[in-house]
Amino acid sequence: MTGRPPFVSFLSDYGRVDEFVGVCHGVMLDVTPDLRIVDITHDVAPFDVRAGALALVRAVQYLPDGVVLAVVDPGVGTERRCIAVEVEGGYLVGPDNGLLAPAVAMLGGPQRIVSLENPEFQLPAPGPTFAGRDIMAPAAAYLAAGLSIDRLGPPVDAAGLAPGLVPLPQEDEDGTISGEVLWVDRYGNCQLNIAPEQLVARGAVPGGFVGVTIAGTDRRAHWVGAFADAKPSELALVVDAYGMCALAYDQRSAAAELELRAGKTLTLIALTEGRG
Amino acid sequence: MTGRPPFVSFLSDYGRVDEFVGVCHGVMLDVTPDLRIVDITHDVAPFDVRAGALALVRAVQYLPDGVVLAVVDPGVGTERRCIAVEVEGGYLVGPDNGLLAPAVAMLGGPQRIVSLENPEFQLPAPGPTFAGRDIMAPAAAYLAAGLSIDRLGPPVDAAGLAPGLVPLPQEDEDGTISGEVLWVDRYGNCQLNIAPEQLVARGAVPGGFVGVTIAGTDRRAHWVGAFADAKPSELALVVDAYGMCALAYDQRSAAAELELRAGKTLTLIALTEGRG
Amino acid sequence: MTGRPPFVSFLSDYGRVDEFVGVCHGVMLDVTPDLRIVDITHDVAPFDVRAGALALVRAVQYLPDGVVLAVVDPGVGTERRCIAVEVEGGYLVGPDNGLLAPAVAMLGGPQRIVSLENPEFQLPAPGPTFAGRDIMAPAAAYLAAGLSIDRLGPPVDAAGLAPGLVPLPQEDEDGTISGEVLWVDRYGNCQLNIAPEQLVARGAVPGGFVGVTIAGTDRRAHWVGAFADAKPSELALVVDAYGMCALAYDQRSAAAELELRAGKTLTLIALTEGRG
Repeated sequence: MTGRPPFVSFLSDYGRVDEFVGVCHGVMLDVTPDLRIVDITHDVAPFDVRAGALALVRAVQYLPDGVVLAVVDPGVGTERRCIAVEVEGGYLVGPDNGLLAPAVAMLGGPQRIVSLENPEFQLPAPGPTFAGRDIMAPAAAYLAAGLSIDRLGPPVDAAGLAPGLVPLPQEDEDGTISGEVLWVDRYGNCQLNIAPEQLVARGAVPGGFVGVTIAGTDRRAHWVGAFADAKPSELALVVDAYGMCALAYDQRSAAAELELRAGKTLTLIALTEGRG
Repeated sequence: MTGRPPFVSFLSDYGRVDEFVGVCHGVMLDVTPDLRIVDITHDVAPFDVRAGALALVRAVQYLPDGVVLAVVDPGVGTERRCIAVEVEGGYLVGPDNGLLAPAVAMLGGPQRIVSLENPEFQLPAPGPTFAGRDIMAPAAAYLAAGLSIDRLGPPVDAAGLAPGLVPLPQEDEDGTISGEVLWVDRYGNCQLNIAPEQLVARGAVPGGFVGVTIAGTDRRAHWVGAFADAKPSELALVVDAYGMCALAYDQRSAAAELELRAGKTLTLIALTEGRG
Repeated sequence: MTGRPPFVSFLSDYGRVDEFVGVCHGVMLDVTPDLRIVDITHDVAPFDVRAGALALVRAVQYLPDGVVLAVVDPGVGTERRCIAVEVEGGYLVGPDNGLLAPAVAMLGGPQRIVSLENPEFQLPAPGPTFAGRDIMAPAAAYLAAGLSIDRLGPPVDAAGLAPGLVPLPQEDEDGTISGEVLWVDRYGNCQLNIAPEQLVARGAVPGGFVGVTIAGTDRRAHWVGAFADAKPSELALVVDAYGMCALAYDQRSAAAELELRAGKTLTLIALTEGRG
């Protein structure tokens, strides 16, 4: 063992079919040859800043200390800035469009922010459209190698950053909680923006039942400890691996069954015995 | 060169769209920063333990010495155990559902098995459902770093493990061999659970012809040395890169042409000149 | 930091669903345990040598110095050779089918070429069909570790190599340029085989308009500096991140809108004010 290597954790909407991801790896390794790169995912839906921000905030606590590079960038080539943000224990690099905001908040907020404007730490580009390769990847690699963030460009005021887009649930007077689907995972499980504590505060009990209303249709979900504790035909509400409420069926896609996708709204209500 | 780094080879059904794979990388690198991770594949069909076991057994002889982490886990959150298995030259970590069994057998059988129950080597989880991240990935990283397997949990008797599901071909009295498709690869080539030695024992000859019956339809396959040795329209039987019989067309998908998929049964018979 | 590690950059049409990529990683790491592998992409369309060659030539200038391993190999198992090519600053390893040719040319042409025939640096294969795993991956790993290229097999004359298939645009007497789509990226942007200098030589002006004729239909494209500078409904012509002309819509797929795919032909012409 020869000491801890520098790390960059990398998320994008580049996909894996084109060579974009490999090229950014190459650029970073050219700057910092002993760099280790963790690919978080590169299959964020094209231009979906919200989905990228949510994937990043779910992952960030599990990533090695170091630098996070995140690129979902519908405004590429426009006035939106590319930024680096110093947080407790590391840095995040990405476009200033809200993508980084939830992760920065979870990591305790920004300590310093700069706009990536120093051409000394950028690649000369044959064309204007690949900020990930030419501006953000080099910045991430230089930060991982120990460059001072001040060198990358002028400071930016936190108040001027684009805000994140984390939707908050609403608690209504009739006891319902209105929320939405944050994320549908590979297995079709639907993570909600509702924490189990909110359900408990409204009278729901683990092991009991919760009313779920989607597009005017009422269903009953069984609040179980694990997917497999639900009966095959039974809609399950579980606390998922990130601590949030999720709707699921055992070994079937709840998203397909309930016609849910990210952003779809629904309401939950605690059910007492007798209803449902 | 600074000595051989520790290796974990990693297979799962997590896919690449969600951040699960990246998170497990992060968890392992946090435990063992100089770890090198080989991603075998993460696109095993969701919950398909058999397909995962077959991919693992095909790959395992080519992986670097060290630890294998394999997660295809429809029983997540239930009573099924997570285990670590010591074999000649390394360890395998995964759920006790048959996923590891064929690879363990190919590597000479288990020397020691433990159930992953020691919370000291697990991540505290916000929810109950992500055993890959919280239990199995840390165990793999600790084993790669040199932790004694005994520390991970109590021993398990090999006789109590879930068995593998490797389908064996049957040799019938009329000279036919009944087998099935083990695997369809990206190019549509169909690997069978039939070894070329079995065909030869039944009278088939490399360069000659073999009768193939699928769903009541008889076809004739030309036993060739390479895909490209077959005529464009000709069904080819080749010994594939793993030493098993496979059905193929040159630069076309045999699976599409013959409506084959993993698990489909068929029979082979040696053809003498005159038939076909 | 313990000195620069050896690098192999790896491109193929293996996909990520099967375990081929992981197996080749394992084989290379077994030969050279401190090797670092950059995956360029493995989702080149099966057998599409031209698409693989174009992805490689786009990526190659951004890859770390070392070895490139590229495998798109419809002739696997036939007489086509597997070769290693020495260039300024590194080596390329792949089948002799034109896949490497454009990248070799961009890197200044071949200095030495050998045919990979020395079994001492190959894996014994259970079957004949996996040259990537058994011949080319080991060769790449040995070269990265410093083996002399002469050891891998007999020299090959550059004149005898399969040529690349880079389509050149044609400039017609009426002022039009006839070209074709080289590549459709994940976002649906269509890279052409036409450089902006060619358009300028024919009278086009950045910020102005260009006539685009596809399958007999005339359209007008606005030559803008960035995707987002085009109006939402406006077809944009941009100089892309590789310095080539590309057709695009802001945040929509030009390929879908214009029914374009790689290989489709079109003509461009500079428009003066008044037309269009």
